[in-house]
Amino acid sequence: MTGRSPRTAAQDAVLALLLEVTGTPKPGNVDRLHDHDDLRFEHFLAGAVGAEPAFRAVPDAPLGETFRRAIEGMRHQQGGNTQFGAILTVLPLVYADHAGDLSPDGAADVVAATTVEDAVGFYRAFDAVDVAVDDPPEGMDDLDVRRGGDAAAALRERDLTLFEVMERSADVDGVAAEWVDGFPRVFDGAAAIRADDGPVPDRAARVFLEMLATDLDTFVVKTHDHGTAERVRERARAARDGDLTPAELADELVAEGVNPGTTADLTAGALFVALRRGVAV
Amino acid sequence: MTGRSPRTAAQDAVLALLLEVTGTPKPGNVDRLHDHDDLRFEHFLAGAVGAEPAFRAVPDAPLGETFRRAIEGMRHQQGGNTQFGAILTVLPLVYADHAGDLSPDGAADVVAATTVEDAVGFYRAFDAVDVAVDDPPEGMDDLDVRRGGDAAAALRERDLTLFEVMERSADVDGVAAEWVDGFPRVFDGAAAIRADDGPVPDRAARVFLEMLATDLDTFVVKTHDHGTAERVRERARAARDGDLTPAELADELVAEGVNPGTTADLTAGALFVALRRGVAV
Repeated sequence: MTGRSPRTAAQDAVLALLLEVTGTPKPGNVDRLHDHDDLRFEHFLAGAVGAEPAFRAVPDAPLGETFRRAIEGMRHQQGGNTQFGAILTVLPLVYADHAGDLSPDGAADVVAATTVEDAVGFYRAFDAVDVAVDDPPEGMDDLDVRRGGDAAAALRERDLTLFEVMERSADVDGVAAEWVDGFPRVFDGAAAIRADDGPVPDRAARVFLEMLATDLDTFVVKTHDHGTAERVRERARAARDGDLTPAELADELVAEGVNPGTTADLTAGALFVALRRGVAV
Repeated sequence: MTGRSPRTAAQDAVLALLLEVTGTPKPGNVDRLHDHDDLRFEHFLAGAVGAEPAFRAVPDAPLGETFRRAIEGMRHQQGGNTQFGAILTVLPLVYADHAGDLSPDGAADVVAATTVEDAVGFYRAFDAVDVAVDDPPEGMDDLDVRRGGDAAAALRERDLTLFEVMERSADVDGVAAEWVDGFPRVFDGAAAIRADDGPVPDRAARVFLEMLATDLDTFVVKTHDHGTAERVRERARAARDGDLTPAELADELVAEGVNPGTTADLTAGALFVALRRGVAV
């Protein structure tokens, strides 16, 4: 099922990040034809290349430490946070691939096995980069991810694994929801990419639009509000159904400053799985 | 002088290949805004990622073997030859960087130290991919690079190092000329990229145009003829001097099926040196 790619899992992880940002239009996001003022295509290139040694440390190093290293490597470019969510999506899948079971069950096994120290590594990654996040729930201030490594004592005190941290965010964060639910959207997206034909970046753009038309993008909820995310989904449905072009939708979202980053993260995960299952570039 | 990048030399080699294909317009070539029918942007992404493990084998493995591995890794995509010349340009520079002397002298030392077995590795790389080459000179049929690994006996019989092989092509191949002359255009290009400002892919596109306006592109000579290459240089001068836009030149060359591949190879080398010398993406 896996392993048809002559590339290693680490190479396919990097390639998935590169193909994700290449697919166009991915309305509202940086892609082959779109830059933002301070976040440009080449920042994503450098981000993907910077994360590569961490992907290569799988499976020998624990997931939390690998994640922190990946984010620190990603960060060596001037765009800021390029692929935090995409790496958080792809990384457990790289572990699952190494364990010989790149499937929803295999991915669920990986995340279920995470430890408190993995949670500490995850929090430390926030020291390297500014990530858009919500305020923590009432009474959880000591676990605010913006505390970064300073939250280590609280994590150990509460004995929270990384999986348990994700459970607490699953209702407000699309990547955390994938972790908790066995990566259903990622694997559905991979199946769609495999069933599609034509250049792989074009397939990625189509699966991105389909995801955007189906579920609320939680990054849009965080950076704007729920109503904006619902409106984006409606417009994405219209684009998917041919009532406007994806390029027109892209123009709309750019004009509003809306970028559906979570949907891009899941697209990167779908590309990784598709590559490992033999989709040829 | 080197080492200001937090990335390893192998990572910067990959990033240089990615930035090269991103810079636009690079008239006649695949870039962020241009595909050819059967050679698309994503093939270059996969080519760069595929070459990565070979770059990482520097300096432990000999150059010829590393080159063969890089080309075999590059080849795992459907576009064919994406970066043969770019890797041949960048690879000696990666060795020079590891030796602590990424300079014309340091690069000259690397290529002067190549062996007959490096030449065999270089020839073997041609087994992995179709590369546009000229017929060999009269009496040199046994050294036709298209023989690939089958030329090993002839190389050993004639006791030809890889440097000596390059010397024999230096008058008809712009990459070989760099090898023989201490990489002057690469280091000049790197200096221009460092002196320039703005997004790095834009700087790469400008240095590409400057090179195209200065020297004949030997890939154009090989795939078309000398007159075509001269005309391309004239038109590149006009574009550089503002008599037409680079985008108009791009349209002209695409319409004629002319792609100045050697100039792109040298641009990749210039980007590698610029990255190692601290140009930030």
